[in-house]
Amino acid sequence: MRKIIEKEFALNYLNKYGSQMTVGNGYLGVRGALEEEYPEQVRGMYVAGIYNRPSGSVSSELVNLPDVTRFQVTLDGEVFSMQAGKVHGYERFLDMNTGELVRKIIWENSAGDKYQLNFYRFASKVVKHVIAARVEITPLSGCAKVKIKTGIDAQQTNFGTQQLAESSLRIFDEELMVGEYETIESKQRITVATKVSQKGVFTAKNRQLMTEVEQGIAANQTFALEKISLVKTSLDEVDVEFPNATYAELKANSEKAWADFWEHAGVRVESTNDFDQFALDFACYHLEIMTPKDDFRCSVGAKGLTGEGYKGHVFWDTEIFIMPFFLYNKPEIAKQLLEYRYLHLKEAKGKALKNGYNGALYPWESAFSGEEETPEFAAINIRTGTRQKVASAISEHHLVADIAYAVCEYEAATGDAQFMSDCGAELLLETAEFWISRATNRNGRLEILDVIGPDEYTEHIDNNTYTNYMAHYNVKMALEWNRDNEAFQSRAKAFLKNLYLPVANEKGLIPQDDTFLQKDWINLDKYKAAQGTQGILLDYSRQEVNELQILKQADLVMLFYLFPQRFAPETVKKNLDYYEKRTIHDSSLSKAIHAIVENRTGNREQAYQFFQEACLIDLGDEPHSSDDGLHAASLGAIWLAVVFGFAGIDTSGELLEIAPDLPDAWRFVKFEFMWKGETILVEIAPNTLQLSKNTKSMLELVIYGEKQQLTDTLTIKMEQKDVSL
Amino acid sequence: MRKIIEKEFALNYLNKYGSQMTVGNGYLGVRGALEEEYPEQVRGMYVAGIYNRPSGSVSSELVNLPDVTRFQVTLDGEVFSMQAGKVHGYERFLDMNTGELVRKIIWENSAGDKYQLNFYRFASKVVKHVIAARVEITPLSGCAKVKIKTGIDAQQTNFGTQQLAESSLRIFDEELMVGEYETIESKQRITVATKVSQKGVFTAKNRQLMTEVEQGIAANQTFALEKISLVKTSLDEVDVEFPNATYAELKANSEKAWADFWEHAGVRVESTNDFDQFALDFACYHLEIMTPKDDFRCSVGAKGLTGEGYKGHVFWDTEIFIMPFFLYNKPEIAKQLLEYRYLHLKEAKGKALKNGYNGALYPWESAFSGEEETPEFAAINIRTGTRQKVASAISEHHLVADIAYAVCEYEAATGDAQFMSDCGAELLLETAEFWISRATNRNGRLEILDVIGPDEYTEHIDNNTYTNYMAHYNVKMALEWNRDNEAFQSRAKAFLKNLYLPVANEKGLIPQDDTFLQKDWINLDKYKAAQGTQGILLDYSRQEVNELQILKQADLVMLFYLFPQRFAPETVKKNLDYYEKRTIHDSSLSKAIHAIVENRTGNREQAYQFFQEACLIDLGDEPHSSDDGLHAASLGAIWLAVVFGFAGIDTSGELLEIAPDLPDAWRFVKFEFMWKGETILVEIAPNTLQLSKNTKSMLELVIYGEKQQLTDTLTIKMEQKDVSL
Repeated sequence: MRKIIEKEFALNYLNKYGSQMTVGNGYLGVRGALEEEYPEQVRGMYVAGIYNRPSGSVSSELVNLPDVTRFQVTLDGEVFSMQAGKVHGYERFLDMNTGELVRKIIWENSAGDKYQLNFYRFASKVVKHVIAARVEITPLSGCAKVKIKTGIDAQQTNFGTQQLAESSLRIFDEELMVGEYETIESKQRITVATKVSQKGVFTAKNRQLMTEVEQGIAANQTFALEKISLVKTSLDEVDVEFPNATYAELKANSEKAWADFWEHAGVRVESTNDFDQFALDFACYHLEIMTPKDDFRCSVGAKGLTGEGYKGHVFWDTEIFIMPFFLYNKPEIAKQLLEYRYLHLKEAKGKALKNGYNGALYPWESAFSGEEETPEFAAINIRTGTRQKVASAISEHHLVADIAYAVCEYEAATGDAQFMSDCGAELLLETAEFWISRATNRNGRLEILDVIGPDEYTEHIDNNTYTNYMAHYNVKMALEWNRDNEAFQSRAKAFLKNLYLPVANEKGLIPQDDTFLQKDWINLDKYKAAQGTQGILLDYSRQEVNELQILKQADLVMLFYLFPQRFAPETVKKNLDYYEKRTIHDSSLSKAIHAIVENRTGNREQAYQFFQEACLIDLGDEPHSSDDGLHAASLGAIWLAVVFGFAGIDTSGELLEIAPDLPDAWRFVKFEFMWKGETILVEIAPNTLQLSKNTKSMLELVIYGEKQQLTDTLTIKMEQKDVSL
Repeated sequence: MRKIIEKEFALNYLNKYGSQMTVGNGYLGVRGALEEEYPEQVRGMYVAGIYNRPSGSVSSELVNLPDVTRFQVTLDGEVFSMQAGKVHGYERFLDMNTGELVRKIIWENSAGDKYQLNFYRFASKVVKHVIAARVEITPLSGCAKVKIKTGIDAQQTNFGTQQLAESSLRIFDEELMVGEYETIESKQRITVATKVSQKGVFTAKNRQLMTEVEQGIAANQTFALEKISLVKTSLDEVDVEFPNATYAELKANSEKAWADFWEHAGVRVESTNDFDQFALDFACYHLEIMTPKDDFRCSVGAKGLTGEGYKGHVFWDTEIFIMPFFLYNKPEIAKQLLEYRYLHLKEAKGKALKNGYNGALYPWESAFSGEEETPEFAAINIRTGTRQKVASAISEHHLVADIAYAVCEYEAATGDAQFMSDCGAELLLETAEFWISRATNRNGRLEILDVIGPDEYTEHIDNNTYTNYMAHYNVKMALEWNRDNEAFQSRAKAFLKNLYLPVANEKGLIPQDDTFLQKDWINLDKYKAAQGTQGILLDYSRQEVNELQILKQADLVMLFYLFPQRFAPETVKKNLDYYEKRTIHDSSLSKAIHAIVENRTGNREQAYQFFQEACLIDLGDEPHSSDDGLHAASLGAIWLAVVFGFAGIDTSGELLEIAPDLPDAWRFVKFEFMWKGETILVEIAPNTLQLSKNTKSMLELVIYGEKQQLTDTLTIKMEQKDVSL
């Protein structure tokens, strides 16, 4: 049942469900806030690419747009609120099959009168500018008088920061409400228009353009009100007309597109734990609605379009954790995400130059302009009054190689020579030039000094293994795609020859960086038990954490994940054990990656446990886990864990490889996987692997280590269950 | 009983009581919002003089500062809200004797557990920067666990407009929370500091600096939490220390100051209608808390510090309706209000010059800078998309003469020659120069063309009688106070000689302006019944209203009020009748003035009825009458109606005159009245007038038309009740 279900109304969980029940379409996202007001409830509507830098701030923020979701319902003189009276038969769910958010309740007011109230909402998957809502009220205790007030509410802010100046409020033809706004600093123009299906009295005051509808309803008759809204911005390339359609008509069109999505991009998992399928559907639904479909000026922020965490900025999360879902389902979207990076090559080169490097140093946090969005200083420590410099913007450079890695993954999956010619080769070149200039001659070799790797609890270290290997790969691939560039050739070859790549020591341990293995170890059990809370920072200063063997997330293990064939299995196993003990997993990017590497190593139960824990980052019981929005990268990682972990897909070799190893709880997995223009249907049972495609052309691939040929169907039966490589 | 009482909790009335129950001290005002959140509830804290012009706006706005009033209380896991569970024994009142806002309730949560919750709040009348709050919780159904979250919330906006950038959030000594902000355009620095009496966990996020206190409470034990807050700004001339005192200590000091206020500035009215005394106390309380006491850079806005109506701008309301209360109770404050105008003489002269006039043309709406704050255009008509020019800023010039009138009233009441020498004479001179340049030679005389008088439903008229007479008085008094200025003398005399002053026609009617008497009359009963709603503008366009005999408020009648001895009683009576029929009283400035003139004319019942209706402007049953704040001028006018109406005081002659004529419902009135340095205690019964003062010096005055001499006490007994002049 592809539904996100809220079993009961609880004030404490308002914003968690608000994030989970976001409706959207990649162009915009609308948080699943309830129609009426509650204390602390955060409403949000965001359009990809619409950022603004508030006065006094150094960073752009994803703009929270004027709200259209709110309805003030008054029944027989009493304001409807689930905090008042009694609620009978509460039902609220987001049907991911259709993208529709539904709430049905029977409300009894303080006088004992009962009413059935149904609320519906969706964002069109076809007409990206459109949001539709419908309210149905049926009085159950005799006739009733209803008043509904709704409209466009530009009192909405980003937690008190107002990003929009109001340009005009208009009503056309006594029915269409139109608000026009402009972002104060970035000067983007926003239009929010809305039309309500019943006649009402219009008012415009205090940044609100509202209509108030009043109606008497006979007992047991249903009063229905539809509200169709349209959002457009100065980023739109084509002008949009206000739709002339009913809620049902818009929904029918949108549903078709959703059905198509699930048919091809959905993953079926038959598990003894129903939750696994649900978590996967949840991840796919949100990956789909967070990602822009047709505008390479926009990428995906760390919270998608579900909330304001990280101000909607774009991180390496996108290329490494989110892009793959699209690469193997709808590669043109993956291409678009890379075109975003290409678009901002200029700004990246500017950042490199400013820091004394060549090539392209991509900003740690990116928004619309492509400039570095990370503030130079973190928020003042409220106790000491001091500010820390934000280390990641200064030193977390692996992002550059992550982008290059993504370019190569894209090329390997699609064979898109045109893209490489237009963008890819140059991206690889400029990122490689950065690494070449970034390296320092020391100890008779090239070293990369003073970085932060994926593990942000370890700063200012030299020769972070992940970074060095990724840099090496970056330059190596740049070399392959820029053979004509002779000057570059020699520089690149020298870099590849001389770059220090840490290897396993006599104990078989690969150092995470130059000093990690020498640091002290402490018992992390209590922090691992409270992963995600960053509790370690309450007991130790940042400095102390840096000096101990404490990982926020997979670092070396990230490398094992990205380069599955690079390291010998025993090495992987040994280092996985060693480093996992020292990993708190406070980063939401960590557990699913560990699940993949554990599974490849044969630690199947541990892998499944990590997978289940990763699924609980946004779906667990912690009421405030997702107040700032969902963890977009962790949702991508859930999909990665299934496809690259349990389904055992490996794209790093010459040929596509697959070696499934399902958790004991799973009896079936099915998904489509696009590879070199072909769509392969993958069906996995504990002892059977079936691959099929619609074309008869021959595709060579490796299944459980053996070359196989797939024309239209290929079925492999396994005798033994234990098939770890 | 000097209490503003809210009998029961009703969502609909939230903001009305929020305005009514404002606590303040003239430096700051804090709306009487409830501690917990409710839909549509408007919180507000304003400091006099702190304005900011938002991006895209042409006008400064009184800034809504970071909130300190909110407390999120959770009892045994359930968020406290009066919308939930049951409320027993609801009690909420503002004790005007002490300035303390109190709420006491017994709340039963959804599980049936009961708790006594008491909330207290006041703004210190002694330490103007300080606000204090106290929360008491007593579990009645067994022990309980309480969580209270409170702090400094800069998510607060002016209805979605954010005026403040956050500069820093700090905690000192693990107890003092300090937020520093800066207004974005006007660059005023604001500090809000707060300390809570219980240890808690501090967080700073999303413009909120909060502490969360958790505690177990034994059954029937009272848990008390005090929150002391301090507000200071870059306007303060002396730095302020955070107070080291308890709620009780701060309150004891503040109470003393309130007791002193009521003893001297309060008016006692013994009436068969208790409401009359209450309305008067309400008026005096709010006049006191809306008015700055020691900063002539600040004046009083049209809503005081109770709300955001008119963006906190200063109108003629201040000089004509609000200043008198202070002039005759604490004249140094009246002087300060005039010094505000003197301070901005330069800007007024700038506006005059810009419009082709000499002298000083004071801005129709004034804020901190003294520049014209009225937008050039009103809000776009949402249906037509067209914008009207705001006529008042262009043409409502009587304000200039109103200021001059107030200067003369101040001088007459105090004999303050120093003030006249420092400021007053120059104010009179420059305002007079304006009128001299404003007049046009036409029809063989000087006319003042194209103005708006006090009646704003009549625009673009010539020779508004009120304006012409006031201008004449302005120039006449300027002449008296600038005898050395020869050049001015001749100009002024010519003006006085030639200015057209409309007089009664053959029917005994004085025209309101050149065309009023020729306009058509329509029956206004339905609009008069709905006074204050501006319903006329729903049925007629502005243009149409201009062309009909429709008054928004007293215009000519204003003149009768300000110059009681100027017109013959029969003339006053005739014109009062004529114009009152044509007055809708949509302006809150109107009814109390009519009460005064009706009473002087002998229409005692009509006078009392108008008085009672004036008292209902903010205190009536209409739930949204005062959402934007209280009507400051109408509160001043309530006091004027008692003192200048029913108590029959007249300051316009050579000597102070008094001729009381109480409503039948009143058996006693008592108040202090300062005149020429003396404080006169006035006590009025239907047949007795007693005046007393502490000094033995002789004060000559006129009582019921006869000269009398007051040394320390003077008692006049009246034989007849009918003593109208």
